[in-house]
Amino acid sequence: MKKTLFKHQMQLRVRNYEVDWQGIVHNGNYLLYFEVGRVEYLKALGIKIDLNSVQGDSKVVLVRNEINYRSSARFDELLTISTRISYINNTSFAFEGIIEDAASGKLIAENVAVHVWLEPVTGAPLTVPAHFREMVSSFEGDAVSITNSPKR
Amino acid sequence: MKKTLFKHQMQLRVRNYEVDWQGIVHNGNYLLYFEVGRVEYLKALGIKIDLNSVQGDSKVVLVRNEINYRSSARFDELLTISTRISYINNTSFAFEGIIEDAASGKLIAENVAVHVWLEPVTGAPLTVPAHFREMVSSFEGDAVSITNSPKR
Amino acid sequence: MKKTLFKHQMQLRVRNYEVDWQGIVHNGNYLLYFEVGRVEYLKALGIKIDLNSVQGDSKVVLVRNEINYRSSARFDELLTISTRISYINNTSFAFEGIIEDAASGKLIAENVAVHVWLEPVTGAPLTVPAHFREMVSSFEGDAVSITNSPKR
Amino acid sequence: MKKTLFKHQMQLRVRNYEVDWQGIVHNGNYLLYFEVGRVEYLKALGIKIDLNSVQGDSKVVLVRNEINYRSSARFDELLTISTRISYINNTSFAFEGIIEDAASGKLIAENVAVHVWLEPVTGAPLTVPAHFREMVSSFEGDAVSITNSPKR
Repeated sequence: MKKTLFKHQMQLRVRNYEVDWQGIVHNGNYLLYFEVGRVEYLKALGIKIDLNSVQGDSKVVLVRNEINYRSSARFDELLTISTRISYINNTSFAFEGIIEDAASGKLIAENVAVHVWLEPVTGAPLTVPAHFREMVSSFEGDAVSITNSPKR
Repeated sequence: MKKTLFKHQMQLRVRNYEVDWQGIVHNGNYLLYFEVGRVEYLKALGIKIDLNSVQGDSKVVLVRNEINYRSSARFDELLTISTRISYINNTSFAFEGIIEDAASGKLIAENVAVHVWLEPVTGAPLTVPAHFREMVSSFEGDAVSITNSPKR
Repeated sequence: MKKTLFKHQMQLRVRNYEVDWQGIVHNGNYLLYFEVGRVEYLKALGIKIDLNSVQGDSKVVLVRNEINYRSSARFDELLTISTRISYINNTSFAFEGIIEDAASGKLIAENVAVHVWLEPVTGAPLTVPAHFREMVSSFEGDAVSITNSPKR
Repeated sequence: MKKTLFKHQMQLRVRNYEVDWQGIVHNGNYLLYFEVGRVEYLKALGIKIDLNSVQGDSKVVLVRNEINYRSSARFDELLTISTRISYINNTSFAFEGIIEDAASGKLIAENVAVHVWLEPVTGAPLTVPAHFREMVSSFEGDAVSITNSPKR
């Protein structure tokens, strides 16, 4: 992933109970850290949380997670989580995330999390709303690829 | 705790991610195991879950947890969780729980979890309903102490 | 994924604390369920756990997780976890996993988890050992693709 | 608990996945928050973590947790965790913890966590070491009750 494309960063510290018997962060916790990054990203953009939840007459659902583990984080390590929305298609969009050691910049893990917009009762795909496209576009600028924008 | 007073038991196996860097189950997971025991206990009695949630015109809230750690459980260990309701007072009741190694019977942890019955909007204490008292009394017999039974 | 290729299955029941505020299993827990499936798979094959840990003069590391979320699991739902090793290459191998509702067979999530074999001190890639290839091949038969087998 | 006796405070924000289906923090997570508070307390005093782990020729073990739940924390709520050591006896000592809403000061939960010092092989109780007594006494002053101090 291109680090320079990420405009949002936050930090968190590895907690005692997130470390497994090898003395390193259990692989499941990176997925949670990326989610913390997405929540803070959406808050920073002024988009009401929770994206996974019903948004009035629609809901947003996580449909795919990809995580590449590059190295291990350890107890009490301060981590930098970088988050961006890389694309918005007609009915879907994707977050990218990077976790690094805050002190050294050592790459720890990378994530792609694909979401889709659905009609809450029937589950039919919905066009990603214009206000969401605009808020993301305004924050990301050229870094986000927006295609199949909705007919208004 | 008196083991002979417990009429409900279930088993679960320690999972990889529940073990901390000392190679033993992290202390927070025993609290979760006791909750699994309470859920299965209530299901066995035919009481609708979740007790912590709103029950029609009332809600049940966990107000106190006590855990005594006696020894450590390890990865892949099969555990026996014993659960009972030890008392029902006017507006509260308590679960007791015991975790043992299933093979050896070695005592691992003990729990008391006190719950109260509340009016969901005002939060005012409510008398524990008669049907709950009756279902528990029917299952526990003399093992449960029921006091201040509701006026009907 | 081809369900018929999976020879190992186990079941687990969704726990209260694994459900998020939408009333469905939080996405991070499926990753943990797949890990439970892998642990039971390796135990069934007689391979000493933990694969993520040091194995004598080598260690096995999870380098990539892919999860596709197909539908949602709910509190107290009984799930079937199917697990297999789909390929073994020279220094890496992959698990596949499927989570279904045990009663209806409804597909809930699919996983690919790629592991590599490393020299524990230098981190240099190591050939997947012959005994591991043989144990997996013996269990999986034609279902596993084994390439670049080690020179002995 | 007497809030004025606490000299150490830290803050953390409730994460999405820590909230259960009632929209409030699951009871098990408060126990984890108290642990985060204890870790930061020990770091602040310059005491090497992890207290639950082996400390050279001794180990420190959590033997009892008491939690009183006073009100509920919600998603994205900023919490203040106050931590102190309330007493050191001959072979044991106790942490106290308070969780409050950072904005309003509303009391959320209180904790007592009792630890004992053990000989790591035999498990025999050991006198709490003089350097630990001194570091805690130096930080806590009159707020900590220290009894049965070791013969030197």
